[in-house]
Amino acid sequence: MNDSNQFNCSIKKIATQHICHNFHSTIEFIGRRWMGLIVFTLLKGPKRYFELLEEIPGISDRLLTERLKELEKEGLIEKKILNSTPRKVEYELTAAGKNLEEVIFSLLKWINENRKTNIE
Amino acid sequence: MNDSNQFNCSIKKIATQHICHNFHSTIEFIGRRWMGLIVFTLLKGPKRYFELLEEIPGISDRLLTERLKELEKEGLIEKKILNSTPRKVEYELTAAGKNLEEVIFSLLKWINENRKTNIE
Repeated sequence: MNDSNQFNCSIKKIATQHICHNFHSTIEFIGRRWMGLIVFTLLKGPKRYFELLEEIPGISDRLLTERLKELEKEGLIEKKILNSTPRKVEYELTAAGKNLEEVIFSLLKWINENRKTNIE
Repeated sequence: MNDSNQFNCSIKKIATQHICHNFHSTIEFIGRRWMGLIVFTLLKGPKRYFELLEEIPGISDRLLTERLKELEKEGLIEKKILNSTPRKVEYELTAAGKNLEEVIFSLLKWINENRKTNIE
């Protein structure tokens, strides 16, 4: 974290200093390459690794693995070990991860109402 | 744009194919380094270049210039030429830019309710 955390937030009075400190890092975390689409895909329910690869065409093995580790480290997803042989693993959003639905929904709404063309 | 635009959105039924195509690029645009804080700062009102530099400690000249160009190109900010000598310029959010307040607000709300520690 850096000096930008000194940023003085006042938006809508819900932004305490603690939230300010978090805003900068959180928006850039969610905006990391592919991060948004991974969360979006997991909002539909738990997925196995290969299912995520299939549903997000264009993502590389390396970046999917990296993003899943970052999401797990920040407590936004959990690995579920399925009771099967061979052992199978699913990735599932935690409660905090699922709550991102509202943020994603407001972004989709903004796009719907404000963008006629793609952002490049 | 790449293959991820084939992604099949269904969230809350507001996501048409057009919006889907835009989601991936938009979330990564807003999550670019410093982009969130620049929009956040401009939500308080029009700012001159040096004011933005002052209010966002840690941002470099190069990145602030680059981000302002990107925001202008996407129609989210406008340059206002002030009637003064020497000529002064202010950066102001367009209507679409101002509408991002709701997205930022929902992210602040999410942080407030879901994060006790900073995302790293």
